[in-house]
Amino acid sequence: MTLNVGVVGVGKIGQEHIRRLTETLAGAKVVAVSDADAVRAKEVAAKVPGAKAYAIGEELIAAKQVDAVIVASWGETHAAHVSAAIRAGKPVFCEKPMATTEVDCSAVIDAEAAFGRRLVQVGFMRRFDAQYRAMKAAIGSGVIGFPLMFHSVHRNASSPAHFKATMAITDTAVHDIDIARFLLDDEPIAITVKAPRENRRAGGIADPLLALMEMRSGALVTIETSVNIAYGYDIRGEVIGEIGTVSLAERSDVIVKAKGAYSGHVPGDWPERFDGAFDAEFRAWIAAAAKGGAAGSSAWDGYVATAATLAGVRALESSARVSIELPEKPLLYG
Amino acid sequence: MTLNVGVVGVGKIGQEHIRRLTETLAGAKVVAVSDADAVRAKEVAAKVPGAKAYAIGEELIAAKQVDAVIVASWGETHAAHVSAAIRAGKPVFCEKPMATTEVDCSAVIDAEAAFGRRLVQVGFMRRFDAQYRAMKAAIGSGVIGFPLMFHSVHRNASSPAHFKATMAITDTAVHDIDIARFLLDDEPIAITVKAPRENRRAGGIADPLLALMEMRSGALVTIETSVNIAYGYDIRGEVIGEIGTVSLAERSDVIVKAKGAYSGHVPGDWPERFDGAFDAEFRAWIAAAAKGGAAGSSAWDGYVATAATLAGVRALESSARVSIELPEKPLLYG
Amino acid sequence: MTLNVGVVGVGKIGQEHIRRLTETLAGAKVVAVSDADAVRAKEVAAKVPGAKAYAIGEELIAAKQVDAVIVASWGETHAAHVSAAIRAGKPVFCEKPMATTEVDCSAVIDAEAAFGRRLVQVGFMRRFDAQYRAMKAAIGSGVIGFPLMFHSVHRNASSPAHFKATMAITDTAVHDIDIARFLLDDEPIAITVKAPRENRRAGGIADPLLALMEMRSGALVTIETSVNIAYGYDIRGEVIGEIGTVSLAERSDVIVKAKGAYSGHVPGDWPERFDGAFDAEFRAWIAAAAKGGAAGSSAWDGYVATAATLAGVRALESSARVSIELPEKPLLYG
Amino acid sequence: MTLNVGVVGVGKIGQEHIRRLTETLAGAKVVAVSDADAVRAKEVAAKVPGAKAYAIGEELIAAKQVDAVIVASWGETHAAHVSAAIRAGKPVFCEKPMATTEVDCSAVIDAEAAFGRRLVQVGFMRRFDAQYRAMKAAIGSGVIGFPLMFHSVHRNASSPAHFKATMAITDTAVHDIDIARFLLDDEPIAITVKAPRENRRAGGIADPLLALMEMRSGALVTIETSVNIAYGYDIRGEVIGEIGTVSLAERSDVIVKAKGAYSGHVPGDWPERFDGAFDAEFRAWIAAAAKGGAAGSSAWDGYVATAATLAGVRALESSARVSIELPEKPLLYG
Repeated sequence: MTLNVGVVGVGKIGQEHIRRLTETLAGAKVVAVSDADAVRAKEVAAKVPGAKAYAIGEELIAAKQVDAVIVASWGETHAAHVSAAIRAGKPVFCEKPMATTEVDCSAVIDAEAAFGRRLVQVGFMRRFDAQYRAMKAAIGSGVIGFPLMFHSVHRNASSPAHFKATMAITDTAVHDIDIARFLLDDEPIAITVKAPRENRRAGGIADPLLALMEMRSGALVTIETSVNIAYGYDIRGEVIGEIGTVSLAERSDVIVKAKGAYSGHVPGDWPERFDGAFDAEFRAWIAAAAKGGAAGSSAWDGYVATAATLAGVRALESSARVSIELPEKPLLYG
Repeated sequence: MTLNVGVVGVGKIGQEHIRRLTETLAGAKVVAVSDADAVRAKEVAAKVPGAKAYAIGEELIAAKQVDAVIVASWGETHAAHVSAAIRAGKPVFCEKPMATTEVDCSAVIDAEAAFGRRLVQVGFMRRFDAQYRAMKAAIGSGVIGFPLMFHSVHRNASSPAHFKATMAITDTAVHDIDIARFLLDDEPIAITVKAPRENRRAGGIADPLLALMEMRSGALVTIETSVNIAYGYDIRGEVIGEIGTVSLAERSDVIVKAKGAYSGHVPGDWPERFDGAFDAEFRAWIAAAAKGGAAGSSAWDGYVATAATLAGVRALESSARVSIELPEKPLLYG
Repeated sequence: MTLNVGVVGVGKIGQEHIRRLTETLAGAKVVAVSDADAVRAKEVAAKVPGAKAYAIGEELIAAKQVDAVIVASWGETHAAHVSAAIRAGKPVFCEKPMATTEVDCSAVIDAEAAFGRRLVQVGFMRRFDAQYRAMKAAIGSGVIGFPLMFHSVHRNASSPAHFKATMAITDTAVHDIDIARFLLDDEPIAITVKAPRENRRAGGIADPLLALMEMRSGALVTIETSVNIAYGYDIRGEVIGEIGTVSLAERSDVIVKAKGAYSGHVPGDWPERFDGAFDAEFRAWIAAAAKGGAAGSSAWDGYVATAATLAGVRALESSARVSIELPEKPLLYG
Repeated sequence: MTLNVGVVGVGKIGQEHIRRLTETLAGAKVVAVSDADAVRAKEVAAKVPGAKAYAIGEELIAAKQVDAVIVASWGETHAAHVSAAIRAGKPVFCEKPMATTEVDCSAVIDAEAAFGRRLVQVGFMRRFDAQYRAMKAAIGSGVIGFPLMFHSVHRNASSPAHFKATMAITDTAVHDIDIARFLLDDEPIAITVKAPRENRRAGGIADPLLALMEMRSGALVTIETSVNIAYGYDIRGEVIGEIGTVSLAERSDVIVKAKGAYSGHVPGDWPERFDGAFDAEFRAWIAAAAKGGAAGSSAWDGYVATAATLAGVRALESSARVSIELPEKPLLYG
């Protein structure tokens, strides 16, 4: 009953997944690892009892002892690895993005549709975060009425050296885009991106950004990305309905009163903020994969996220509203 | 040392100002009232000991016993009354809008500039609200760094029967526009207005709206107006700086725990929310007018508010970005 | 219709009341002042147009032009001045304590009862504080059920040089005692005081203290006084009912996010915290005194406050539970 | 490397522990169960692959395949099972109370001291709760100065049918007593219990209660237990230091604005509130037990909790202050 997992790509993120499966969560065992860097694959495997190293991801995916696959390789290679897993009929958890182009996304969807059943889970952990789940439940309860707007705010203390403005859309806002679709049960049709005055801490890139995403229902989503705001990692959100709103609460453990102020803690980074969501995400994946399936964001969700972020990049570069054209949603995705 | 005040226009708002000056605040006495409806003027005067009724606002303004004037008449007539007060050299408090056209606003500015000293105070009470003042102080302290964005949210439980979508800009967002300028020490250069899916409670008008106002510094202001949101009168705001943010706090008096929830009160309407601000606004006006001057929003602020809201109306009607062209700011306004 | 007020005792507090009546609130005029320090009385009178200085409080009270009296003299003399006002049939606002002994309190009550109508208002401003009023309204609404406990917390940043431990009861907890009676509509029957480990900042006095006051209904009131807690002036309270609770909310104007924390402001001292309550208290007094009466805490409330604090002092000194014996409540007090 | 665990007592709590070890957490495997009800033991074992049923707890404890023991049997039998585990040299997790009498507690301590190393972990899960850990960290940081008081509040929506007033001390306040010792690094020396007016929902038992626990340092701990308060399961706490305070924050996932209020969720019961703490507690136990040791509350902590609660029971029954006499702390416990 233990799920035997192979991990493709064992850089920082891949190793973090291995740690979570090995030390934290019940039900899974890492039996195989691979990496473009064969030495690293061997080093990581050496630390995981019972795990075998593979030089090539496709070989790991095909290996008999591997029940299910986690893809945490370089983004450009995600689609190939996911498609290989689908061909092997194995459940696959893929880090976002599922693919970096719409063509590659289409290939994954087509493969899965051909297979006839969901195998792919895309790593949008927010869907498993207790706060977002409570937000969705509140919307579902009718207490705020039909949702008309969603203000999403995504703030990082600082961006890495290689960061560029478009990454605020492809790597940062992509999470807001996915969660907006999840919360509103809706699809994006267009996106506009505004670049206010730049934060001088951002080293010359356009930061912050404000994206406006129009949804099929007419709902409007605003996404603020501020990736060099120093004070912490702060994820805010409020859905505005016809008769009320629901917003993410502050979540400090304690309130300290000292020196004329009462104060709560803001998370320092995403591992701190979303640790529980990652646990829940992989718990759901292990349970679903053990039955040959998947949970959370689907390949379709992966497709739309990529399509919307690419439109967002064009919107930023052109300062114009860019339509998001989606193909018909395959029946498999409901 | 008591300021003798004449009130032009004694409908609901004018009577409320009379009540505040007579029953609540020290330092002023209402000695004259006028109204387009002469019967109403007499009825109101009869209830204020020592007050005389005038049929014509200009006569009241000219009356010897009147030290200072409050203009609370119909919006279209504001400019004429304010200009008359300037010509009479009397301090004048004018309800927003100062004038309904840019031409009329210019006339007021020119008259005041010719007079050579500020006499006009425009009734943007938010500048006297303790919360906004604390917000401005926080920005001024440097704790959030240079401000880059301001998210302003203006929600009413319901809009009156005669409400139309453009009023969400001219009557509602106008307060957000003025306070944005106050908080950011900045001027607007363009505005865009997005209309999300309509609230079905709004009776067919475009509600909510999301306005984006671009400021000269590059700062970006978003203004959500939701004027039929049922749950209460809720004014929210957050200024996003380079290293932190400052937002308006919730201000319930008490927290009740009952039935599985802890909850605080949301104001029901603007008199409840801004009662303290109105007190402070008139206290400042009485003090300034007693010295022949004015406090708070100036005629220039009144001009820009009108210019920006008219641009907002055009932006809503055209679905396009509309530039806000301002004349050079007269020296009088610093 | 203006209330002509004489102020007995024009030290810091008395001058603050004069300022409030003269500069802030409508409806009253200070026409007479007196002080044990005749020079000070003259100096203060010189700054208040139309006010006459008296050397002796009783003369001021008797003066024809004085409609109503504020007693802000030294605590030991309160009872004499209040009784003189009652004899003169003039409404009188008395700073707490109404009297420093139960005998003196009785004399006031007897005098007022003999007069046959309330003239005395004791200066417990919390009864006019918006937060406490909302708390009482919540209790009255039934949402928390019948109240069983009240946890009251009274914190000062620091105590003055002459402070001694018993003053934490007579000067500090006295406010909590009065508001407990107001909130619970109940009378105290006994009090116990515990002295935890001392705050080393308190200079050797017993600080903090925890008082337990038992009420006639069986409700239990805990009162924490921490008068050297450095971080600010913080008044907290929670009433625990059978099915819910109500507590005073934090009331910062803004929330600042910076340096890993979100934080709100704690008031620095009591004038900041209770400024609005003082306004409301005097507004109510002016209105009531203009009609020959009084509002807020009555002479009976002043009696009970003194009786309970004196019992509290004995409880602290004896480390024992001390009963609070009250006479029958005169019919005048309902 | 998997810890093979035997569970003594597989009623509701025991089964919950089995579920947690089997389905949620990595690192442990339940290989044996026992219960006073032999049928239940077999039924539970049948559902856990690889687990064997034992009729007698001592046999399970002695069984070769059992590396470590969880004691979730009836409270009266805890001490015997724990002692048996110590004799077997096996790490043992014991539900609270460790024993129901001081004599039995002494026996456990003596056995462990004789063994020479900690084997016993008592199930006070609050020590693993993120909020209490943050509270302890805040105290440790010095930001509030030396702690002088701790106000602890423990509220349940309703108490079970068999509940009696003393259980509010032995079963409810026991958690507050343990966490007070943990937060303050201090030992209790006396306890007093006050019974306010009874909640009519409590069916005639004394509820709520207010316990005052005096600590060796002079710190004072107040513990409110309200076990029929209807609105939810609410655990509050504030530590008052010399220059500041730290309190448990509200932890709703979202804030809903609707119908004139903003509101957050209060947990419904203890599994909801402390689910994460139980995970962390068992994660720590698995890690420590795998190395032959224990984490969290020790047998000494178990002893003091029992001694203090028994004193509390006497205090409630006698309405008097009851001293808590502790033996010298064995060196083993630092």
